[in-house]
Amino acid sequence: MGTYDESDRLAATTIRMLAADAVQQANSGHPGLPLGAADMALVLWTRYLKHNPADPAWPDRDRFVLSAGHGSALLYSLLHLNGYDMPLEEVKRFRQWESATPGHPEYDPQRGVETTTGPLGQGFGNSVGMALAERLLAARFNREGFPIVDHYTYVLASDGDLMEGLSHEAASFAGHYGLSRLIVLYDDNHISIDGSTDLSFSDNAIERFAGYGWHTQRADGHDMQAVDAALAAAREVTDRPSIIACRTHIGYGSPRQDSAKVHGSPLGEEDLRKTKEYYGWDPEARFYVPEAVREYFAQVQEAGADRQAEWEALFSAYEAAYPDLAAQWELHVRGELPAGWEQQLPVFSDEKPVATRVASGKVLDAIAPSLITLVGGSADLTPSNNTLPKGGQVVSRGDYGGMYVHYGVREHGMGAIMNGLALHGMRPYGGTFLIFSDYMRPTLRLAAMMGLPVVYVYTHDSIGLGEDGPTHQPVEHLTALRAIPNLLLIRPADANETAAAWKVALKRKTGPTALALTRQDLPVVTPPGDILAKGAYVLAEAQGGPPQVVLLATGSEVSIALGAQKLLAEAGIRARVVSMPCWELFDQQPEAYRHQVLPAGVPRVSVEAGVTLAWGRYLGGVPHAALGIDHYGASAPYKTIYQEFGLTPEKAAEAARRLVS
Amino acid sequence: MGTYDESDRLAATTIRMLAADAVQQANSGHPGLPLGAADMALVLWTRYLKHNPADPAWPDRDRFVLSAGHGSALLYSLLHLNGYDMPLEEVKRFRQWESATPGHPEYDPQRGVETTTGPLGQGFGNSVGMALAERLLAARFNREGFPIVDHYTYVLASDGDLMEGLSHEAASFAGHYGLSRLIVLYDDNHISIDGSTDLSFSDNAIERFAGYGWHTQRADGHDMQAVDAALAAAREVTDRPSIIACRTHIGYGSPRQDSAKVHGSPLGEEDLRKTKEYYGWDPEARFYVPEAVREYFAQVQEAGADRQAEWEALFSAYEAAYPDLAAQWELHVRGELPAGWEQQLPVFSDEKPVATRVASGKVLDAIAPSLITLVGGSADLTPSNNTLPKGGQVVSRGDYGGMYVHYGVREHGMGAIMNGLALHGMRPYGGTFLIFSDYMRPTLRLAAMMGLPVVYVYTHDSIGLGEDGPTHQPVEHLTALRAIPNLLLIRPADANETAAAWKVALKRKTGPTALALTRQDLPVVTPPGDILAKGAYVLAEAQGGPPQVVLLATGSEVSIALGAQKLLAEAGIRARVVSMPCWELFDQQPEAYRHQVLPAGVPRVSVEAGVTLAWGRYLGGVPHAALGIDHYGASAPYKTIYQEFGLTPEKAAEAARRLVS
Repeated sequence: MGTYDESDRLAATTIRMLAADAVQQANSGHPGLPLGAADMALVLWTRYLKHNPADPAWPDRDRFVLSAGHGSALLYSLLHLNGYDMPLEEVKRFRQWESATPGHPEYDPQRGVETTTGPLGQGFGNSVGMALAERLLAARFNREGFPIVDHYTYVLASDGDLMEGLSHEAASFAGHYGLSRLIVLYDDNHISIDGSTDLSFSDNAIERFAGYGWHTQRADGHDMQAVDAALAAAREVTDRPSIIACRTHIGYGSPRQDSAKVHGSPLGEEDLRKTKEYYGWDPEARFYVPEAVREYFAQVQEAGADRQAEWEALFSAYEAAYPDLAAQWELHVRGELPAGWEQQLPVFSDEKPVATRVASGKVLDAIAPSLITLVGGSADLTPSNNTLPKGGQVVSRGDYGGMYVHYGVREHGMGAIMNGLALHGMRPYGGTFLIFSDYMRPTLRLAAMMGLPVVYVYTHDSIGLGEDGPTHQPVEHLTALRAIPNLLLIRPADANETAAAWKVALKRKTGPTALALTRQDLPVVTPPGDILAKGAYVLAEAQGGPPQVVLLATGSEVSIALGAQKLLAEAGIRARVVSMPCWELFDQQPEAYRHQVLPAGVPRVSVEAGVTLAWGRYLGGVPHAALGIDHYGASAPYKTIYQEFGLTPEKAAEAARRLVS
Repeated sequence: MGTYDESDRLAATTIRMLAADAVQQANSGHPGLPLGAADMALVLWTRYLKHNPADPAWPDRDRFVLSAGHGSALLYSLLHLNGYDMPLEEVKRFRQWESATPGHPEYDPQRGVETTTGPLGQGFGNSVGMALAERLLAARFNREGFPIVDHYTYVLASDGDLMEGLSHEAASFAGHYGLSRLIVLYDDNHISIDGSTDLSFSDNAIERFAGYGWHTQRADGHDMQAVDAALAAAREVTDRPSIIACRTHIGYGSPRQDSAKVHGSPLGEEDLRKTKEYYGWDPEARFYVPEAVREYFAQVQEAGADRQAEWEALFSAYEAAYPDLAAQWELHVRGELPAGWEQQLPVFSDEKPVATRVASGKVLDAIAPSLITLVGGSADLTPSNNTLPKGGQVVSRGDYGGMYVHYGVREHGMGAIMNGLALHGMRPYGGTFLIFSDYMRPTLRLAAMMGLPVVYVYTHDSIGLGEDGPTHQPVEHLTALRAIPNLLLIRPADANETAAAWKVALKRKTGPTALALTRQDLPVVTPPGDILAKGAYVLAEAQGGPPQVVLLATGSEVSIALGAQKLLAEAGIRARVVSMPCWELFDQQPEAYRHQVLPAGVPRVSVEAGVTLAWGRYLGGVPHAALGIDHYGASAPYKTIYQEFGLTPEKAAEAARRLVS
């Protein structure tokens, strides 16, 4: 247990003052958390956190997650003082256009920002994924005498984080999996935006986390010694995650201490001055860092550099002893997959009809063995999502060598944990029904915003799931997912497009991909190969002349469009069928290609088992019809539902005939 | 405490056999839960549940919520045997087209189905809203000697329900508010779809709920006496909700007992026969109800009718003693608001600019006092959402006379609780930032599917929120909400459209309404009145001749369109401005009106601070441009962001000029 003196207190004060100045300068932001949490942050960052600001990418660094992202000014203070690439100029530009200091922390690994936080609960969930990744990597890469993966994940979480349902899913998961390298500092300040937490929140959080199997402690969050002792005790626990409820006072030392008013508004010049007086600071000083504090943090930084140097030496010896493993490690660190993995992708031909979820399972069977960083899973729908590859070992408490995670009925938790896995260099995919993408939607947005290569395996993607009925039948979800910037939604028409979809998804390094897959069998109608790279393509050209009508479809409705094409041919009408598995990729193609696929002046009919809201994007400017479902589904065998809702080759052909005549 | 004999066991067996037969007949469904939970359901339904199947709408009935909706066959068995309008023919048509017995229970108050369940956690959340509604109504209507509101809400919940984050938010809320009329039977069967719950779930649920301040018990779920005793004890608790962890065996009595295989697949003919043999049932009998069991339930039904008769007598006396209150009660029961409430709506004119969130607050100030069933709230953003009306009393533990609920940082919980409030005849509205609509999205869908008149107050509806940055700036959410069938999304252009929006929202009885409101001030540019009824309208006609271009906009961008119109007029171009606050209402107008607003052949420019994905719907067929934001936002003062992203009158005018020339 460490001891603390004036130099530590001065450092903590400096953290506070920088943060308060930043908020005041921006005239916007949250001073309450930095003032309240600076003491525990100081203990953690100077005595426990293993990091080297000179190399923020050091793979074996401890991770720090500010789950309470509204306290961003605290993080920017810490990063600046610790010597990260966070110059004082940027702290002064807090919350301004194109600054490095946005209102809530945005994933910025080169500056030490480990994840994007702000939407409450998300950082907490990410941290569980990071702590899991640490164990998965340790199981894969560590060897006797070579603990090259050996670090902790620390979280600073707020009341709000713990109120969010996501915290339940992630904490219950972490408890089940015994993630002992996860240590949460809970900033227990008794205040939320609406006022005292007495208004809405009376959980005994410690008892609740004990129910999840966590190690729990309480500490005075302004007593550095006490926080230090609790952290030391937490690190001794080797079979469970730890939470330390640190009683703090929001806005500590300001005239607004213990009030909701200090949560999300600047102190104002007068209260800022009074706060500085409380801390014995020059009330007129702004963005001031005493030389002694500079020296204090320089020492901390030096210690961090030394630790990385030790690790680098260890890694060199490891590289000599285990060159193959070390090579795989390097690939992992660069976020790359081993060369040639795509050659394992199966080809489907002369097959009987197969559901795309089944085809997806066959793809995983084929490729999973060669991808050491691939981590699969499902939110308790493994047999339905076909996500567990043949021979895939299951991860369990104390045994992290496997590649498959039973996430439980925790879609939101799965999403946040997958983001944490991806942030830590793993390649996660996770399954649930497409309908339940709604349960995890906030995590998709963050994966897309951060550019994380997460893959969502969304099966049962339409009314085609049949008897489970409208509560389980997505109709609006394809559109709602297409609306998320930087998320690719791929809805393959058959088994071959499914293999191509996985190729796109796993080769993608700049953002997440959602696969929408069928429960029901589909005939194999597309050729194998790179058919998906352009997002949409002419699958079946009109015969005997230029097309008189273009049929556009995605997923299971491509077969319906092909059936309509046949009916139209019998009626002497030339129709082209365009398969459009991925709108986003199609939209990125040059105009010439898009016009080639969708020729000007030729009428179009779209067929998709979902809302037609956004199809105007591809139908405008020519006579057109949109076949879809602008209402909820029904519980019945799926063929009946398709029939009753008019999604059939006959109806599609009829619509096309009307346009042509 | 009751005693149980062979007649009870025979009744429970009949429940099981009907459910198993229904699943087998459909060759689809979930037999495991009905076989496992029939014993506790029997105890609850025959000894405790206060209901009268002859009048499912009796307002003071106990509510029963099958949160584990996949066990729908259990519910249909119970409804049939108890004499609800659930004929055996419908049980036989389980999961078939247009049957009364869909795969998961769908809200059907005339048949005793109290809410739509299936997506896990939702029924649990609804039940918290129902239990809250019971207390709110009791506080409003009960008078000394006249407990006209005096009932319980019972829930049957599964492992899956308790794994969902929603259960945390709702349970923590129920514990905080001391909702003692809420009693949860937890079907603790140790099995989920992926297999044993040991794979993913090791919570001590009892300890967790104790942490929420719940009364907790354990019981053997197959020991009717034990379940009865636990229910009796739970009803004695008057300051806390109760949960009873009932240890059961999934698929009890079948050869697949205690296996994941019995969760979601029919038993198959052979195992069905073996199950019947286990229970001493004729293995060949299908959909068989012994006469003794008919008589048994007839007696239960009679007791229920007697209880309602007693209540009716009480209510008659109440009506005589409190005629005004009784009249308000009748309005509540019919789901109507008091005549003339709209007259309280404020009119905004000659005002300085005002944020639509502030205008919304003024609307609530004006109308809340006259609406006795209105229940407001916010997910810990009260001062930002402007949801607490002047003089509005806050609901707290033990004091339910107020109208305002501090939901805490629990968006998903708030959504599910509001659904429960609406199911119980209240008129709930609840606020959060628009970005966090993602956190509660599953509840919006269910409100829309059930046709519940819930109002969502979504403020901070665009990049216009400024410095909080992209994590808090919705860009895809307007489109994602428009995609939900039967949800109205209204994005008012100013204070007057905000008042009109509230009028539409509260007059609506067939589904929910989401209001998207600004943080930033907006000039008042629209006239007061019923301007919103048609969804879109010509706000500012082109001057000096027919329009050469139409500018379409919603919300805060209407002012930008008006600015562009002015710039265009200066350049000699005649532009019309169409305000489109509600797409859904506009789409319902006759084609003639729609063409009048958006004349054929005239170029169009849309301006909305969100993704342009779906604007093709209104832009097709004419030269057009869509101004929007097809990427994430930024952290900076909002005027800077609008400028940098090109959402300005100048850019809109420029786009229009290009189209016209």
